[in-house]
Amino acid sequence: MKKRVSRRRFIASAAVSIVPSVLASAQPKGAGLLSFLSEAQQASKFSTNWKDAGVIDLSNSRYAKLKTVPVRAVVIEDGFWSQRRKINLTSSIPSMQKELVDHGRMDNFLRLTGKSTQPQKGPVFSDSDIYKWTEAVGFQLQNGDQPELRKMTDAMIRDVVAIQEPSGYLNTYYNEDRKPLRMQYDTQTTGHELYCIGHMLQGAIAYYRATGDPTLMNAGMRFVDDFLIPNYGPGPNQKGIVSGHPEIEIALIELSRTTGNPKYIELAGYILHGDSRIPLKPQQIVYMYCGIPFPQRTKLEGHAVRCMYACCGATDYYLETGDQAYWKTLNVLWDDLNAHQLYVNGGVGARAAGEAFGDAYELPNAQAYGESCAAIGNMMWNWRMLAASGDAKFTDVIERALYNGINSGMSLDGTTYCYRNPLAFDPSGESRDRHLVDGRIRNAWYDTTCCPPNLERTFASLSGYFYSTSADGVYVHLYDNSEMNWHLQDGSALKIQQKTNYPWNGDVKISVSPATPSEFTVYVRIPGWSVSNSIKVNGKEFPGAKPGKYLAIKRRWAANDTVDLNFDMTTHLLKANPAVTEDRGRVAFQRGPIVFCMEHLDQKDHAPGVSMADYTVRLDGTTATKYEPTLLDGVMTLSHPGTISKVADPGLYFPVENAAKPVVTPTTLTLIPYYAWANREPASMQVWIPYRDA
Amino acid sequence: MKKRVSRRRFIASAAVSIVPSVLASAQPKGAGLLSFLSEAQQASKFSTNWKDAGVIDLSNSRYAKLKTVPVRAVVIEDGFWSQRRKINLTSSIPSMQKELVDHGRMDNFLRLTGKSTQPQKGPVFSDSDIYKWTEAVGFQLQNGDQPELRKMTDAMIRDVVAIQEPSGYLNTYYNEDRKPLRMQYDTQTTGHELYCIGHMLQGAIAYYRATGDPTLMNAGMRFVDDFLIPNYGPGPNQKGIVSGHPEIEIALIELSRTTGNPKYIELAGYILHGDSRIPLKPQQIVYMYCGIPFPQRTKLEGHAVRCMYACCGATDYYLETGDQAYWKTLNVLWDDLNAHQLYVNGGVGARAAGEAFGDAYELPNAQAYGESCAAIGNMMWNWRMLAASGDAKFTDVIERALYNGINSGMSLDGTTYCYRNPLAFDPSGESRDRHLVDGRIRNAWYDTTCCPPNLERTFASLSGYFYSTSADGVYVHLYDNSEMNWHLQDGSALKIQQKTNYPWNGDVKISVSPATPSEFTVYVRIPGWSVSNSIKVNGKEFPGAKPGKYLAIKRRWAANDTVDLNFDMTTHLLKANPAVTEDRGRVAFQRGPIVFCMEHLDQKDHAPGVSMADYTVRLDGTTATKYEPTLLDGVMTLSHPGTISKVADPGLYFPVENAAKPVVTPTTLTLIPYYAWANREPASMQVWIPYRDA
Repeated sequence: MKKRVSRRRFIASAAVSIVPSVLASAQPKGAGLLSFLSEAQQASKFSTNWKDAGVIDLSNSRYAKLKTVPVRAVVIEDGFWSQRRKINLTSSIPSMQKELVDHGRMDNFLRLTGKSTQPQKGPVFSDSDIYKWTEAVGFQLQNGDQPELRKMTDAMIRDVVAIQEPSGYLNTYYNEDRKPLRMQYDTQTTGHELYCIGHMLQGAIAYYRATGDPTLMNAGMRFVDDFLIPNYGPGPNQKGIVSGHPEIEIALIELSRTTGNPKYIELAGYILHGDSRIPLKPQQIVYMYCGIPFPQRTKLEGHAVRCMYACCGATDYYLETGDQAYWKTLNVLWDDLNAHQLYVNGGVGARAAGEAFGDAYELPNAQAYGESCAAIGNMMWNWRMLAASGDAKFTDVIERALYNGINSGMSLDGTTYCYRNPLAFDPSGESRDRHLVDGRIRNAWYDTTCCPPNLERTFASLSGYFYSTSADGVYVHLYDNSEMNWHLQDGSALKIQQKTNYPWNGDVKISVSPATPSEFTVYVRIPGWSVSNSIKVNGKEFPGAKPGKYLAIKRRWAANDTVDLNFDMTTHLLKANPAVTEDRGRVAFQRGPIVFCMEHLDQKDHAPGVSMADYTVRLDGTTATKYEPTLLDGVMTLSHPGTISKVADPGLYFPVENAAKPVVTPTTLTLIPYYAWANREPASMQVWIPYRDA
Repeated sequence: MKKRVSRRRFIASAAVSIVPSVLASAQPKGAGLLSFLSEAQQASKFSTNWKDAGVIDLSNSRYAKLKTVPVRAVVIEDGFWSQRRKINLTSSIPSMQKELVDHGRMDNFLRLTGKSTQPQKGPVFSDSDIYKWTEAVGFQLQNGDQPELRKMTDAMIRDVVAIQEPSGYLNTYYNEDRKPLRMQYDTQTTGHELYCIGHMLQGAIAYYRATGDPTLMNAGMRFVDDFLIPNYGPGPNQKGIVSGHPEIEIALIELSRTTGNPKYIELAGYILHGDSRIPLKPQQIVYMYCGIPFPQRTKLEGHAVRCMYACCGATDYYLETGDQAYWKTLNVLWDDLNAHQLYVNGGVGARAAGEAFGDAYELPNAQAYGESCAAIGNMMWNWRMLAASGDAKFTDVIERALYNGINSGMSLDGTTYCYRNPLAFDPSGESRDRHLVDGRIRNAWYDTTCCPPNLERTFASLSGYFYSTSADGVYVHLYDNSEMNWHLQDGSALKIQQKTNYPWNGDVKISVSPATPSEFTVYVRIPGWSVSNSIKVNGKEFPGAKPGKYLAIKRRWAANDTVDLNFDMTTHLLKANPAVTEDRGRVAFQRGPIVFCMEHLDQKDHAPGVSMADYTVRLDGTTATKYEPTLLDGVMTLSHPGTISKVADPGLYFPVENAAKPVVTPTTLTLIPYYAWANREPASMQVWIPYRDA
């Protein structure tokens, strides 16, 4: 009981006004080796069939306004995302498995059971590469069985769980000579032990939801139940705990959702609250985005992926507990994102130093860090904020990140990846970048290979992001040719089909087919960029569409009812806030959800001596669009009037009166979707194009 | 002999065409404990009286066109630099000594002789803090004795040398548990052992040149002679060597100049050549700027201080050996500096990540790293390039760095320091910067405290940078009230006096007084920024002055001959090359050598709601100047017409057609010298000011 009081105290101090009912009503069990199935059966709240869980499982999340729809319930058909998802299955996932094996990531496990003589390879977080890849496989298998892939993954999982120690501990790096370093405070802040277990749990849960096989999840639970909870926590006989790289928080809460056991939420909450017994420097608290009570945060800062994952975990915590201090803070942080920190491609993280958020409005282009993982973290966070609120402003961010700064992360052939996703690029200078090999920003392998499997799990789970259900109906978030077969929250079956050429075209034909006619609301998302819209229900105009809002269509629906959406695909030339120094005097092109860029090799004038810095765009010009089916797997290109301004090299600095008048030549600028850049030979690229001379 | 051949082989491969005569003619002695004095006496080339050596001693440097003049030979009188140098002596040097002691930098030594029980403190390079401070003292004492300071320093030196081991090894960090790590290849790349010894030797030499006391120098020589040379080098029984952080190269060559023993040049050359037995990753070769033959470099890259120190060492090597491959490379690198990498304040190093050079033209303002040490390294390098060539383009860089990006590094009161020297600043956002404490960019102490003593040694040695001698006369590099008492290279005494209000005023009155009338050339530097010039000799116009060149005044000089210089102090509004993204649409103000900046608290309109991003400068305006004797220890301020453009916050991104027309208010912009920024309460600052709206 003493321990229970102690835990309650921290919750009371973190939450201003409420003691979350889920915590108050459920007595956490003592730590011990749990048999997964019996645990699940015991848990009073447990009701989810593993096949019915979505990307995250919000079925019993009391503060989730929207509930997820299973990945398997939505089939994405031929269209914008199908090629990407096919490549993900046939090329990315298998080639990454080979890379992981070739770089010793499985040998790290096999060594510990005597099956390999290879030394430890890779950084401290190398185990997580295997787990994140396993999560990608899990989501992929949720889309449909792949017997060979499953067989291979089953075998890998057996090799992973074989190294678990009787104590429950499982990590390949902190072994042998490094055993004494396990969970030391210095190791907790830098060693990624809990980060690895977090990814293990996420991978395990995705795999369980695909196959019903709890092998990996049982191992992860044993780590938490037998090793972590008995030894780390607020009790006088427990040691301090800090996540170091937030991730375990998300995983623990998803484990709670999967098992119905609230003790994992409690532990996540304790970690989110911060453990004052861990000595941390102020810069560590900034960098790691953990270690102090989450509700004390006032801005996004520190390592961008850590920060985004912390926000995901905190939102998950809110979804379960309704803690208003968390919700208030999360909205303050989101406003910081939206007003100061979001790249136009949906990426986040301005600084290479510390892979970190910069100051407000610090959004450099060529030097943008914009790690693929950070853009994915941004999407994951907004997905949770959307579930909590039903507010389309979060979906706008999801779409911006997904179509642009995430989609750019994987090459069109699915075998090479961007670690950074800058908004301008010059291959000639970039040998100075540690993530570039031979001037190429896309590479098949990075020793820190967090991004590739992160991209793979995102694309594999994409169908789970299309819809949600609410108490009164269904939400349509994303648009592509697809068919959902699911049910409303009252259990009545519902099929929704989409036919569209989105995002190249703004028309989306939706058919809504409940099994039996009934009244409910279909919420269709009107994208924030779509200024004027026409929505028709069964051919008749339906009023009230507002950009950046869900349009609620409440009526009695019957089989084959139709909703015709017509979004505004006008190409917009965007300016940035004047405080964004590098974007002053520049515009970016966006059409629908797609942000465009100039790649030098598409410019008809890319003669020697013409550089990216010489182009300007004419603001008085009109943009022409053209779908090019054979270019870059099929893309819309833009053409827009511009100029080339050439002057003799004036040197680095010169008096303004000495500035030579440039020789100006009219030209036509050609733009391609940003996500498709760097898929040909290395070339200069820019998203933000000057509209006047220097 | 076998070893000798092996050394010659590497020299032949590094030098394309010549076997340096200094190396060919002098047989290096075998390693062994050297008594400094006997070594000095034995060395055939040794001829320098310690009192006659300059900042570096080029007396016997065969490829030095210019020879240095001793620090003690030039007295800087009341004027621009006198206050700074007085503060350096009375405030900076003593307060830094206290900081060093308070932060355990002396305890690190005392612990090893049982005089302290404190644990090791500070990073791996902490010993160098003491040595660089000692170098500052050495230069200070060359300006005139300070008995208390000398007594304190003598005692510190005794505590330092007391820890030297019989092997010659001397380092406080790689001791006790860390002994096994000494000089391991991983330690050589990151552990700064040779960096510390390099600074020890530089400090020791400056102290020797001040006092004649070789105590510290003997300890440094023992490290090199007994520990380093016998164990590390090209021989089959020697281990590989890499400097990791270049610095030892400069020190070894100066040691050779001081002792006359060429073996130190040989070792420096071997290190500059790189030792292929050390396994290095490509990114280490970039970052450390060592490990491959220096002449293979084609651009400045990697850690800026490492790179600048490597260039210093390589230039020193050229000055001694005449190796044309080095000279060619050094000029290629200087062109890279001048065309792509030099900040307008003379700073270098664009990136916080790796404290590194960026791509060509990558010169961000708020995010500029511009470490004080890097600007000093830039000045040191250009000083050596100047000595090799007599070309005033190098002096222009020295002056730009000295008056601006170096001078900014120390607060006006001499007790706080900038680590970074950015060209724009917003204190509200800067808590994210690890070098900022409480929003203040100047701090008394950094755990990496390289910059403060580096600034102190620079100001203490400043008088040594004013003049050089050449075979045919004397060069005047810098201008301030001063008196030189030295001699021409033929030994005939020469006094030169300067009277001026430079840099606030462009008039400099020079009197040239040889002891006996004789014909020689006085080379007066015409600064590159001085477009129109008037030079009078004994009141009569002397033609031929060209900006950025030395004007050779060859004549028969007699006592009290005068040269009147009148430089062009027009304020210039500078533009940057259009490829410098952040400077597009902006200008910087420069008047004489001084670069100016806007600090927000000087703007009469800095009402709440007006931010730096709202100001624009009118290019058609005229700049007014005003000397303000009580502001910031006496500065010239500039006033220039500008505007304030206010719009309601448009959000982060918005369609160009939605841009609101700003409300424009005329104003007058006030600028102060950049070096004096951040000496009042924290305020926004910018060097590059927009000349049009966003």
